[in-house]
Amino acid sequence: MDKRYTVGIDIGGQSSKIGIVSEDAEIVARGVLDMKGFGPDDATLFLDSLCAEVSDLASGVGLEEIKGIGIGAPNSNYYNGTIEKAVNLPWAKDKVVHLCDGVSRRLGLPATVTNDANAAALGEMTYGAAQGMKDFIEITLGTGVGSGIVSGGKLVYGHDGFAGELGHVTAVRGGRRCGCGRNGCLEAYASATGVARTAREWLDDGNRDSILRGIENITSKDVYDAAVKGDATAVRIFEYTGRILGECFADFVTFSAPEAIIIFGGLMEAGDLLLNPIRESFEENVLFVWKDKVKIMRSGLRASDAAILGASALAW
Amino acid sequence: MDKRYTVGIDIGGQSSKIGIVSEDAEIVARGVLDMKGFGPDDATLFLDSLCAEVSDLASGVGLEEIKGIGIGAPNSNYYNGTIEKAVNLPWAKDKVVHLCDGVSRRLGLPATVTNDANAAALGEMTYGAAQGMKDFIEITLGTGVGSGIVSGGKLVYGHDGFAGELGHVTAVRGGRRCGCGRNGCLEAYASATGVARTAREWLDDGNRDSILRGIENITSKDVYDAAVKGDATAVRIFEYTGRILGECFADFVTFSAPEAIIIFGGLMEAGDLLLNPIRESFEENVLFVWKDKVKIMRSGLRASDAAILGASALAW
Repeated sequence: MDKRYTVGIDIGGQSSKIGIVSEDAEIVARGVLDMKGFGPDDATLFLDSLCAEVSDLASGVGLEEIKGIGIGAPNSNYYNGTIEKAVNLPWAKDKVVHLCDGVSRRLGLPATVTNDANAAALGEMTYGAAQGMKDFIEITLGTGVGSGIVSGGKLVYGHDGFAGELGHVTAVRGGRRCGCGRNGCLEAYASATGVARTAREWLDDGNRDSILRGIENITSKDVYDAAVKGDATAVRIFEYTGRILGECFADFVTFSAPEAIIIFGGLMEAGDLLLNPIRESFEENVLFVWKDKVKIMRSGLRASDAAILGASALAW
Repeated sequence: MDKRYTVGIDIGGQSSKIGIVSEDAEIVARGVLDMKGFGPDDATLFLDSLCAEVSDLASGVGLEEIKGIGIGAPNSNYYNGTIEKAVNLPWAKDKVVHLCDGVSRRLGLPATVTNDANAAALGEMTYGAAQGMKDFIEITLGTGVGSGIVSGGKLVYGHDGFAGELGHVTAVRGGRRCGCGRNGCLEAYASATGVARTAREWLDDGNRDSILRGIENITSKDVYDAAVKGDATAVRIFEYTGRILGECFADFVTFSAPEAIIIFGGLMEAGDLLLNPIRESFEENVLFVWKDKVKIMRSGLRASDAAILGASALAW
């Protein structure tokens, strides 16, 4: 029997990645599109270039073997197939771009788009740690905090297609200013930038000893490196971050009673430094009904391929 | 064409209510079962009595016209059709009672059970304010705070059947002790008992003027009566309660992006005294994506019939 394939596309500000993905999660062909050339008036040019690249890659397996195209993109609307007001994409910054229509018309294949955290959740369910699960929450800890919620085997899109913004629950009432204009959002604490912010605040503030002192523009990677070297302040920063995540996870569980909360993204490089305090804080805070029942686990997706695999899973 | 009917049963500690409900939400026959007679060993006797009463009521329309039986009951598990460790039901206090199997076997009809807040959500969708909606959250403000979450037209049951315990999100970190053993739960503030507790705390604490002073064992009804008479402290108690609810609702929306949050239950007798501060606080706290987009509204179910209608909606 012939293999079947889908196309996974991850649209980003710097580059867009394309992969031809087989049913058994093998990326059989890869392409990259440099995004720097596309200005405010180049939505059509971008669609032409993207679809030319997909055609080219697909010729290896035969376009007729491809079942569909899945796209992960910022500020995308699943219901309308559009990208809307995406600040990092000049050609979609001040307008609505009909992405799926454009791709579908050019290639003669069905196309679907959703945001990257939802794509990661689908990827997890299709190829990763959530295989066989019908109820789980995917949390992405990167520059920001995103989420994709799967309930009864289906992604929760909500009335308007924007459900699953768990980075913007209020973790600390009256807390830090968040990029969204509100205060105390989970994202302001538990993202890579949030961790760096905690480090800078703590060093500015007190008389803490730390090898982080003296580093200019501390990043979450600096905090991780220091923690690995045994720096107590750096270790405590991850404990503090994990504690806040665990408290919020306890609230998330009251909503959808998931089998697991699965964590994906750059910050998870910290591994047990972050995962242990998350688990401890979660078990301390969760309602008795769910004590020792919900798995808090790492993503099973390879970081480098997750975006493509997640997007391709949309198309199955 | 003949009308079709379902049976709605609401199992409570004091009494269980039974109704034969037509497709157009008319309760064509009603019965009540006094629960005081059923002791710890009377699960079978209870099932016999309940089913005899249903048979009796159904004879009016003809048992063959009845499509199924829906039951709302505390501590019930939708997946297993059981009641588990229900403290207010002696015959189901220390054990698991196979409610749906027992009813189904006796009456030869399919039976389904869920908790009362989920039943209210289904009732709202079938007969009430959520008709035509596919994404909404039902919040019940009674002795406790319950919730039923509908996503994509389906109730969210979660991995274990216990999803939707939004009364136990942490509304105030490190706040009041809740009946569940944790601190700061929404239920400790926004239930009828929570409102009474706020009143007692505020009167104990400060030098506030209020006509509530002098009432022994203040209830939420006392607070309402005082507020209607213009008592400033009583009005502020509802503002405080509404503010906390609005803050929590803003978090709920990030999860499932509902079209509406619909509020049901005794505390909603307070009407705009509670609803206005909820709406104000919600709009202040919600992420920009959902500003002025989510309806916060009252239940469209008649309070006296809601439990039966909600349960009967399970059976369609």
